[in-house]
Amino acid sequence: MEAWTITEHGGPEVLSRVQRPTPEPGGDEVRVAVRAVGINRADLLQRLGHYPAPPGAPPDVPGLEFAGEVDAVGPRVTRWQPGDRVMGITGGGAYAEAVCVHEGELLAVPDGLDWPQAAAFPEAFLTAWQGLVTVGGLAAGDRCLIRGASSGIGIAAVQLAAALGAEPIGSSRSDERLARLRALGLAHALPGSEGVDREALKAVAPGGVALVLELVAGERFDESLAALAPEGTLVLVGLMAGMEARLPLARVLMRRLQIRSFTLRSLPLEGRLRLAREARRHLLPLLAAGRLQPVVDTVLPFAEAPEAHRRMAAGGHFGKIVLSH
Amino acid sequence: MEAWTITEHGGPEVLSRVQRPTPEPGGDEVRVAVRAVGINRADLLQRLGHYPAPPGAPPDVPGLEFAGEVDAVGPRVTRWQPGDRVMGITGGGAYAEAVCVHEGELLAVPDGLDWPQAAAFPEAFLTAWQGLVTVGGLAAGDRCLIRGASSGIGIAAVQLAAALGAEPIGSSRSDERLARLRALGLAHALPGSEGVDREALKAVAPGGVALVLELVAGERFDESLAALAPEGTLVLVGLMAGMEARLPLARVLMRRLQIRSFTLRSLPLEGRLRLAREARRHLLPLLAAGRLQPVVDTVLPFAEAPEAHRRMAAGGHFGKIVLSH
Repeated sequence: MEAWTITEHGGPEVLSRVQRPTPEPGGDEVRVAVRAVGINRADLLQRLGHYPAPPGAPPDVPGLEFAGEVDAVGPRVTRWQPGDRVMGITGGGAYAEAVCVHEGELLAVPDGLDWPQAAAFPEAFLTAWQGLVTVGGLAAGDRCLIRGASSGIGIAAVQLAAALGAEPIGSSRSDERLARLRALGLAHALPGSEGVDREALKAVAPGGVALVLELVAGERFDESLAALAPEGTLVLVGLMAGMEARLPLARVLMRRLQIRSFTLRSLPLEGRLRLAREARRHLLPLLAAGRLQPVVDTVLPFAEAPEAHRRMAAGGHFGKIVLSH
Repeated sequence: MEAWTITEHGGPEVLSRVQRPTPEPGGDEVRVAVRAVGINRADLLQRLGHYPAPPGAPPDVPGLEFAGEVDAVGPRVTRWQPGDRVMGITGGGAYAEAVCVHEGELLAVPDGLDWPQAAAFPEAFLTAWQGLVTVGGLAAGDRCLIRGASSGIGIAAVQLAAALGAEPIGSSRSDERLARLRALGLAHALPGSEGVDREALKAVAPGGVALVLELVAGERFDESLAALAPEGTLVLVGLMAGMEARLPLARVLMRRLQIRSFTLRSLPLEGRLRLAREARRHLLPLLAAGRLQPVVDTVLPFAEAPEAHRRMAAGGHFGKIVLSH
């Protein structure tokens, strides 16, 4: 089978297309013939050498989410059979014509979703679910600031928060994106793109927000903490603006703030299985009902993985960039 | 009644002894004739102007914990009667001959505890309980690093962690204190007083600790995060080394660390009532059985509040500094 590998670190040009033996599914594994792959920022970090593959994942083949058809099953598999349309997350290896994963990691693709849409679903929506609900404790009526609302996870989080009866708040540098976010469920748009407009936030959340979903961080981290109500929780899931932050301990202590964090990528198998179970129960019904919509910005042929990385690095997209076989 | 007040900010000399009307207990309040008051670092910060009294507390009379006799009860009080020996936390006002508090905030003083010991119990042990268990999720078998183990809360946390079947780890700059901490339940002593000796920590907690109870913070905060196992929790309860810290976001994210925080002082009444209920159920039996021991360093007469502040600021004490009427 063909796969994209990272054998040295650097720009998109270090991605190298190679032949690999097609993996055989053992035990409770399923082999999926990959039809589409979602591109994630973590793939770019891995390519740059900043983010090695987690234990158990292929060290040199990136790719955290995929959609495709089951084409072979291990002897203990009970849930799937060849031909089933599935999607899922994995610790790596999805930039390939086939992946083998535990059967419990897979989700059925609802009718009406095409392959790129299905590949655009898992990472963004499972991260949004875990960040907002499992880790962040979001509940109906809560006001929730989503920092980086136009990112893949941000777009998913806006939809999910709205579907759960909460009030997502966010901003964007573009009026067009803001209009799209509103159509997807954004309850309150803050003016400006850089930083949190404190007066505007106060107008919609006078005592602060219960939850911040942090996808930006870096120097902007401070403002996120300042937006929280007493006993509020910040859930760190992304670092688009950088890896270092100042932490005002006195504010954290006096307002009894919580800082929690979550990444799918470093989640061990037991965590991925639990998350897939939660997604089957809580997210697939919303997806099937059209209340969650994977947003695809760009579909490129599988052969154009380097171009996909260039486009993600350039920014300006709204929704996922997907490779299609 | 007599009370110590803070009418301007500055050194211990700004504490001023005044006459105030003795408060009358209304509704479900109890008036306690204070026999002893525990001194806390927060009192010193309040005196310096860094830590205003929380809403609902007397703005100018410090004092967060006390022990004494019930001497009057409001018309709806059912739990206490005059003469009962009680102890408790409050948002402020305990540097006085009498305090009025909600009846649900009080704890019965077990036989065998004198007034200074009783006044030395609430703040340290309720904070340790809340920090380790309610917020931190400590459970039997967990390794727990207590940063600032010789402080009032640290000494309580060492005892409590040991009583719960966990393994408290800590260090001290003095061999004598370390011996006392060992006698109180410290499972592992790390060498050195400044910083965390990483090799020594690795020897006792190879994958890192499940929990850090952080009483030091400031520049030392980094080391605390580095001591955590994946998915570990740091609970911030004190700032002895300063209010600003650097936060390595990538480490937080990749290890899925949690930073939580807790202070008794800013807890509203509902939180104090809940905490008192937990203390009755979980802590008083351990206290009555002698498995938790309030440690009193110094008892001074009520008239010597400024001297008590000086001694606390000077450091070098092991256990609580208490004023006695």
